[in-house]
Amino acid sequence: MFFGSDNWAGAHPVIARRLSEEADGFSAPYGASELDRQVEQKFNELFEREVAVFFVGTGTAANALALAAVNRPGGVTFCHREAHLIEDECGAPEFFTHGARLAPVDGEDGKIDPHNLMTEIKRFPPGFVHTGQPMAISITQATEIGTLYRPEEILAIASIAKDKQLPLHMDGARFANALVALNCSPAELSWKLGVDIVSFGATKNGCWCAEALVFMQPDMAKDLPFIRKRAAQLFSKTRFIASQFDAYLTDDLWLSLARHANDMGQRLQNGIRSSRHARLAWEAETNEVFCIMETDRAESLQEQGAIFYPWNPPHSKLALLEENEVLLRLVTSFATQEAQVDQFIDILG
Amino acid sequence: MFFGSDNWAGAHPVIARRLSEEADGFSAPYGASELDRQVEQKFNELFEREVAVFFVGTGTAANALALAAVNRPGGVTFCHREAHLIEDECGAPEFFTHGARLAPVDGEDGKIDPHNLMTEIKRFPPGFVHTGQPMAISITQATEIGTLYRPEEILAIASIAKDKQLPLHMDGARFANALVALNCSPAELSWKLGVDIVSFGATKNGCWCAEALVFMQPDMAKDLPFIRKRAAQLFSKTRFIASQFDAYLTDDLWLSLARHANDMGQRLQNGIRSSRHARLAWEAETNEVFCIMETDRAESLQEQGAIFYPWNPPHSKLALLEENEVLLRLVTSFATQEAQVDQFIDILG
Amino acid sequence: MFFGSDNWAGAHPVIARRLSEEADGFSAPYGASELDRQVEQKFNELFEREVAVFFVGTGTAANALALAAVNRPGGVTFCHREAHLIEDECGAPEFFTHGARLAPVDGEDGKIDPHNLMTEIKRFPPGFVHTGQPMAISITQATEIGTLYRPEEILAIASIAKDKQLPLHMDGARFANALVALNCSPAELSWKLGVDIVSFGATKNGCWCAEALVFMQPDMAKDLPFIRKRAAQLFSKTRFIASQFDAYLTDDLWLSLARHANDMGQRLQNGIRSSRHARLAWEAETNEVFCIMETDRAESLQEQGAIFYPWNPPHSKLALLEENEVLLRLVTSFATQEAQVDQFIDILG
Amino acid sequence: MFFGSDNWAGAHPVIARRLSEEADGFSAPYGASELDRQVEQKFNELFEREVAVFFVGTGTAANALALAAVNRPGGVTFCHREAHLIEDECGAPEFFTHGARLAPVDGEDGKIDPHNLMTEIKRFPPGFVHTGQPMAISITQATEIGTLYRPEEILAIASIAKDKQLPLHMDGARFANALVALNCSPAELSWKLGVDIVSFGATKNGCWCAEALVFMQPDMAKDLPFIRKRAAQLFSKTRFIASQFDAYLTDDLWLSLARHANDMGQRLQNGIRSSRHARLAWEAETNEVFCIMETDRAESLQEQGAIFYPWNPPHSKLALLEENEVLLRLVTSFATQEAQVDQFIDILG
Repeated sequence: MFFGSDNWAGAHPVIARRLSEEADGFSAPYGASELDRQVEQKFNELFEREVAVFFVGTGTAANALALAAVNRPGGVTFCHREAHLIEDECGAPEFFTHGARLAPVDGEDGKIDPHNLMTEIKRFPPGFVHTGQPMAISITQATEIGTLYRPEEILAIASIAKDKQLPLHMDGARFANALVALNCSPAELSWKLGVDIVSFGATKNGCWCAEALVFMQPDMAKDLPFIRKRAAQLFSKTRFIASQFDAYLTDDLWLSLARHANDMGQRLQNGIRSSRHARLAWEAETNEVFCIMETDRAESLQEQGAIFYPWNPPHSKLALLEENEVLLRLVTSFATQEAQVDQFIDILG
Repeated sequence: MFFGSDNWAGAHPVIARRLSEEADGFSAPYGASELDRQVEQKFNELFEREVAVFFVGTGTAANALALAAVNRPGGVTFCHREAHLIEDECGAPEFFTHGARLAPVDGEDGKIDPHNLMTEIKRFPPGFVHTGQPMAISITQATEIGTLYRPEEILAIASIAKDKQLPLHMDGARFANALVALNCSPAELSWKLGVDIVSFGATKNGCWCAEALVFMQPDMAKDLPFIRKRAAQLFSKTRFIASQFDAYLTDDLWLSLARHANDMGQRLQNGIRSSRHARLAWEAETNEVFCIMETDRAESLQEQGAIFYPWNPPHSKLALLEENEVLLRLVTSFATQEAQVDQFIDILG
Repeated sequence: MFFGSDNWAGAHPVIARRLSEEADGFSAPYGASELDRQVEQKFNELFEREVAVFFVGTGTAANALALAAVNRPGGVTFCHREAHLIEDECGAPEFFTHGARLAPVDGEDGKIDPHNLMTEIKRFPPGFVHTGQPMAISITQATEIGTLYRPEEILAIASIAKDKQLPLHMDGARFANALVALNCSPAELSWKLGVDIVSFGATKNGCWCAEALVFMQPDMAKDLPFIRKRAAQLFSKTRFIASQFDAYLTDDLWLSLARHANDMGQRLQNGIRSSRHARLAWEAETNEVFCIMETDRAESLQEQGAIFYPWNPPHSKLALLEENEVLLRLVTSFATQEAQVDQFIDILG
Repeated sequence: MFFGSDNWAGAHPVIARRLSEEADGFSAPYGASELDRQVEQKFNELFEREVAVFFVGTGTAANALALAAVNRPGGVTFCHREAHLIEDECGAPEFFTHGARLAPVDGEDGKIDPHNLMTEIKRFPPGFVHTGQPMAISITQATEIGTLYRPEEILAIASIAKDKQLPLHMDGARFANALVALNCSPAELSWKLGVDIVSFGATKNGCWCAEALVFMQPDMAKDLPFIRKRAAQLFSKTRFIASQFDAYLTDDLWLSLARHANDMGQRLQNGIRSSRHARLAWEAETNEVFCIMETDRAESLQEQGAIFYPWNPPHSKLALLEENEVLLRLVTSFATQEAQVDQFIDILG
């Protein structure tokens, strides 16, 4: 019963096999191989336009380098108060931008509220050096708490971004999960709505280590080759990342894997909904499920072999918890089996 | 009618004179002169203990280097959501700490609420690398909105700091104003309550350019000489800062100046309280006064020669303002004359 | 005829196979798995002491984080004038140390001259803030130009390091090649000579992506978990790195691979030595060979399918080249076949 | 006998007086006052073109922010091996540029040799991420060792800068001393030769604290307002810097002061030239004089009240010193009296 995170899973067999096939032979390193070019072309097709793609090793690297690409002195990036950027990257975004700030924006359900976004941006009069200067907006899709921005919600934020001439970044560590849940194409959920940069995650969804940073306007990435190398994220044998993406993106494998993870998430959520011993913290829509139960019961489940972790409650949900209760996050993945879910629901009771 | 900020004033004549006296002769540069030693000794006496003192050129430098001295990778400093550190230093604290974060803590009246502080700190489980690690707590005294922490309020925060082994920094850009308003000695308002580092400002209160960074435990500052030099804040002719402090601290000049500034602030506040055309945003206790009036009226006052600026409303006060209203900050200083205050109240009506 | 670099090779079949075996199942991420623990234990055995090991994704990351671990404000690391740190990492060491400097030390044959090292260190009087402060010494073994420090040469440098209380770092991107060439054990070539930190490279020698940062005194690495996470180098599915090391270090596979690479290097060097159309730039001892030939001839070889690159001449070797000549680097690897070498020598003539 | 450095002097009476006159009254802070505008206009006239001027507090700040303005990821600035940037700023240039490197270029007499400069630049193939990328060239005028670049020497370097599209920075901590020694106007010694940015120092030459960063093409400085604020170098009461420059630049006071300093330097040099107990290390042309004597004698002079310091020998001059000898730097200033010089020569014998 592994619900600790989607990265407890290993690699999908098709991806593992494809990776093995690359073991032999010689190939230009540092992103210069034929395979690198082919996979980059796949991204062009995927996004239905010419994009600039950079492979990196971790989701944190993708996010941090996205902001580094659009960095400004005294820069401020607006993101949700509980964004992964703020809560889970140990200050990497600030470090890679030499101290640019992440300004927290409140909003329900893990999503930036456009009205609050405007309020925060207005605190920065243009050219006023004391406050620093806005440099980007970042949203997470699917969000950190398993919810989804609807296309029109992204559009509302993108409209502010455009008006303020701020690049719009999407942390897509679980981009695939969002796509299948919303039944959108990559283009429909990104640049067609005004998204400029996507951290395109694949590690959580079946790869070993494959993250891509995708710029919709290649010009925006003109310094990225140097930024990535300086960040120690230019891998020498890049074909090992490229080949994973090659298998991942072929025959819609990635979408099938995400669909499975989401289905397992919803199966788990449904089970919890009918439990007498736990309640849903909110309605999740992807492969992350959040529930509340008594602390004792959570510990008992862990003793019975269920793996999951407590989660810091969002600021807007602090009142949901009673004193003896705990908020839990349970994550499913491409590798989660129905039987695991059912077993968990069974012991939960 | 100069209420733009206390730094619209120049220098007090006694300080200006003392500075001129240092023009002649030769003296060891870079903080090595006899006068530097004498003034450092004055700080020991002032704080009733042996402290480590570093002169720097701006309040932003003092604050940023205070945090740099206690910096940790992935570090997080807890401060009020509208602290000067966050709102007015263009990211300098993050820059000088290589990206350490300022975590905003909500609280009424410009002051950190200890309960909220605990809630925020609890989001950082010890040793958990994803969130980063707490590295300091910073409070501002007097606060950015003219209010004051009472000694027992500081004690409550210091008790959390001690429990979590976090250094407690005080941004004392207006430390003198706080001291006279609370009738405390420097020691009583700092280390006796658990404050470890004070940004001791003098520029706003009658100097040209004199800021000191004071460490109550000299050990905490062992890297500071290199940090300050690397920060381009080691002035060559330091005697020009030392001599200002020399005059500033002699015969309680600094406290007299702060008392005058506060008196003028209260006179201004009383005048506004009885106005039909403006209302106090909250009760200020020092030399910064905040009021709300119609935007048209504010502009009319400016046209009649009054200098002041609109202020970003604190997040907890967003509801105070009607649509056609504006929040204004008015600041008095050692140089403010009664007649200026009375004239302003008069034209306000 | 692939002599571009050792990272043109892929992965050794044993390592590829071992990696595939890890595809299935669930495992604690972020370095917390049982396998991570086992492989860390292997490093203890390898180095014959308890070491602190951190897996990272690139050699640049290993080097840069090694220096970040011992970082000081205004810090200066002494390394050879043509060290990889200086010439090939796009400023990553400076970036990850917030600007600590790499001070170039001249020396013949790619090796720091201890006398020059002392001369450079003496430029930094203790406590003198203007110059900054020494923070580390870094050597490369095998060196960037295919030569080797003899144990007694390392000892001479380590003795200076110890005297000046500076940690001694070894960039071991080709550590295995050095070990087999010198017939030393890892302990004999590191801490027994006074080396404190080793960047232990495996990628160039048969892995896909496996680098380890090894601290001989675990205390020196106490901030490294946060430093690594902030650097975006904490991989979620770390078992994919651990498993490569597992295979790499089992049954001395790594030493066999390095021995083969060195043998191929020497075979290539011998061939060049007897050529009429090229001459050795200097005697290499490992898997990197440097020769000089006319630019036209180099281009002709490339047209005939040989892959190699020109190399920036060391400052001490600038006089070696005639105007129409070029310095070339040729690198062999675990995957280089004798036939490739012989074919190259054949067409070289 | 104060020859420790030119910053052992205080402030010239005219400048001190002008500063005092600014003590009264109210004035817009943060560079927004009428006086700031007037002094900026003086710089336009001085340089015979529209320049962008930024006041900062230290020479290190001016130099570091000059490079920050033209910063690039993985950037490399070429400067003389013993430039102040490298030897005396505790890593500030690297810190403020987030780790951009200073590449040392050898050259006689404290001056970059254009041939060596080309050799170093050629090590950076365009677009090659591993080496990083050239971002600027910096020269010091007058140099750190009291010599001068002739206009045609600057032209040769500027021609390389132009060809490689690199901005050319001049560290002018002693710009005035160079101007009077070469009998050039500011324009003739800067942009007319191809210099893009000047660190225009005034502190060493009679001010208390007045440094200006001057950009010949204002576009190059478009981020500087935020960079300076983030660097904690935006002073609140900027009129205190502006007023010093106002007096400094009026009636050619600055040139008179520099001329006196140079004259004293030459008088000192002539005295040493005829001494039996010391010899000139090289011919200085401004107010810094370098001589070699026995260590015992140097100590004896210090005991007799002469203040001066030993100096790290330039790499190209290491052979000048016998074992028991020391290289000394002696600096004169606007405040040096003939009698001091003569007394020193007298006791030197």
